[in-house]
Amino acid sequence: MKTRKLFVSAFMLAMACLSYSQQDKPAIIEDFKPSSKNQPGQEYPQVNSQGYARFRIVAPEAESVVVSLGPGGTKGGTPLSKAEDGSWMGTTAGPLDEGFHYYRITVDKGTFNDPGTMTFYGSTRLESGIEVPAHDQDFYALKNVPHGKVQQVLFPSPSTNTCRRAFVYTPPDYEKDRKKRYPVLYLQHGWGEDETAWTNQGHANLIMDNLIAEGKVRPFIIVMTYGMTNDIKMGGLKNFDIKPFQTVLLDELIPYIDANFRTLANQPNRAMAGLSMGGMETRTITLARPDVFSHYALLSGGTYSPDDIKDKSKVKLIFLSCGSFENPDGVRKAAAALKEAGINAVSYVSEGTRHEFQTWRRSLKELAPLLFRDQK
Amino acid sequence: MKTRKLFVSAFMLAMACLSYSQQDKPAIIEDFKPSSKNQPGQEYPQVNSQGYARFRIVAPEAESVVVSLGPGGTKGGTPLSKAEDGSWMGTTAGPLDEGFHYYRITVDKGTFNDPGTMTFYGSTRLESGIEVPAHDQDFYALKNVPHGKVQQVLFPSPSTNTCRRAFVYTPPDYEKDRKKRYPVLYLQHGWGEDETAWTNQGHANLIMDNLIAEGKVRPFIIVMTYGMTNDIKMGGLKNFDIKPFQTVLLDELIPYIDANFRTLANQPNRAMAGLSMGGMETRTITLARPDVFSHYALLSGGTYSPDDIKDKSKVKLIFLSCGSFENPDGVRKAAAALKEAGINAVSYVSEGTRHEFQTWRRSLKELAPLLFRDQK
Repeated sequence: MKTRKLFVSAFMLAMACLSYSQQDKPAIIEDFKPSSKNQPGQEYPQVNSQGYARFRIVAPEAESVVVSLGPGGTKGGTPLSKAEDGSWMGTTAGPLDEGFHYYRITVDKGTFNDPGTMTFYGSTRLESGIEVPAHDQDFYALKNVPHGKVQQVLFPSPSTNTCRRAFVYTPPDYEKDRKKRYPVLYLQHGWGEDETAWTNQGHANLIMDNLIAEGKVRPFIIVMTYGMTNDIKMGGLKNFDIKPFQTVLLDELIPYIDANFRTLANQPNRAMAGLSMGGMETRTITLARPDVFSHYALLSGGTYSPDDIKDKSKVKLIFLSCGSFENPDGVRKAAAALKEAGINAVSYVSEGTRHEFQTWRRSLKELAPLLFRDQK
Repeated sequence: MKTRKLFVSAFMLAMACLSYSQQDKPAIIEDFKPSSKNQPGQEYPQVNSQGYARFRIVAPEAESVVVSLGPGGTKGGTPLSKAEDGSWMGTTAGPLDEGFHYYRITVDKGTFNDPGTMTFYGSTRLESGIEVPAHDQDFYALKNVPHGKVQQVLFPSPSTNTCRRAFVYTPPDYEKDRKKRYPVLYLQHGWGEDETAWTNQGHANLIMDNLIAEGKVRPFIIVMTYGMTNDIKMGGLKNFDIKPFQTVLLDELIPYIDANFRTLANQPNRAMAGLSMGGMETRTITLARPDVFSHYALLSGGTYSPDDIKDKSKVKLIFLSCGSFENPDGVRKAAAALKEAGINAVSYVSEGTRHEFQTWRRSLKELAPLLFRDQK
């Protein structure tokens, strides 16, 4: 239960934090450019080289327009003011952290999305998104390298009486040698998100394409499905029942993937990772079924203690990560304790980030090269 | 040029039409249910068994909220009224046509999407969408049948100096026999839409899965990419230059698909189809390059005349369709003239629909069984 509490606390803390620092306020540099998450041709929102975000909403007869950043709009508001052309404009009070941020706008106390941006499923609804260019954005950029495919599959799920959706990343060389088989990483989103998050917000496919092009990882398949996390309200984790998802994942999805993709269908070649509440799912399921997964990763999603691991010989890797503004000491200490106990554990702390996707993009980049290195 | 004018007129007519009939107004039956295009758990918008749509928007301090149906909100407005709970509610003045409709909401003269629905790329922006259950909706329903995959590929495009996105449908048996090769249909969206339209709005993958399960089609691959149609404003078709898209399609995408999928990479096994402006693209490209495609289909996208076809022996099928509220006589007459001239031409008119996706879903269902029947 301690881990659950830790997870909830970290999550709540992240919610409550402002995502920009209000301590130092340098003069705003007027080099704003459209965010890379805008819809085609849309000029706003914009971001400048310091990380300030500027918004523009057209609603000539509105009385008030406010931008709220963070999942569910929990990270403070930026009220917009009426400009001369009748639009509403405003700039954040400080620079935002690098990377992707959810947001929403409130128009006369109604909640809407910014018509300028693409939408991203978070907080159990489609949200607006803005991207603050990161100093290390190259690792998830769309480059002229061989690209893997992201496939939507619909797999039969008798336990939920429907066909469920998953996205499957196959590496660029998947079609080249049709006899080759691959290890598989099952990769879970967080609370409020769904199976689209890791590619849309996380760019998991581009991260893999780039790492593979640089020869830094052994190519593997990634499977992303809905973790059924959103039936609970935030903070109500004790009411979350892992069983329905565990059944879907272990009894339905894994057999489907092994039957329909060229996988190495055994425990040494299967990993599970998850961010935030997906980390809690990963932790629960890997501990309950050590015969299924050999590599475990929790991204801003709690920790394992040595006592959790019943049979150390079955665990090839435990990876723990978070943003430096989350709980870096907890993550580092947990990894050290695991190592002390003879388990191959690695911790990673993403510098200058919080409970947001830049932490998890970087975590995937650090995790991927460690997966399946010694397996056949 | 005649075809272009016809296309533009049909398009404009569709824009101008109200999508509901205001002549007969039976009493509204209070059996409203959430639209199938709603975000998970969202109660509104709703549709009743007669096809009336009811909307609910929360914006307590707004002065006016209006729902506008049709692409770009061109099909008439439904003003909402303030309900007792402070939300804005309203019901369409009449029943909507069966099938999918784009819409948007106007809050205090600002244009937003309904936070209740998923979003769909149309009119060069993400739009709200609502689904009126059709009497024949079974053919695009998610059923417990074997499902094909929809794959996102990123293909190199030197001519546009980037990697471009396409979606590729592979039939359910694609992974079963790894030596089998398949014919390919290149399927284009309309103006304002993009490469996501045929699966998100059109359910092309489910239509194929269901037809294949019933043994009604020879399984084939479908490739959907962005037709670069949205650089022009509506009606400015004469400024549209097909060349950039033709280069991407013929010199970049087709070679990529033939190299990365198990295709039958020859003219007899290649079809091109498009809806609305995608039909105009299909017409132009198939006539310019009869060596590439053997099956042509225009869905609410103009017609061919016998004089257009230089070498009849190269054309295996011409398929022309539209909604019964569009230009059914034009489509039927054009197909008859082609048949008269010895070309295998088929027309199809979707009963009770306009320039909208229900017409195109049905057109794909009628077209698919006719494709690649006699080829090896």
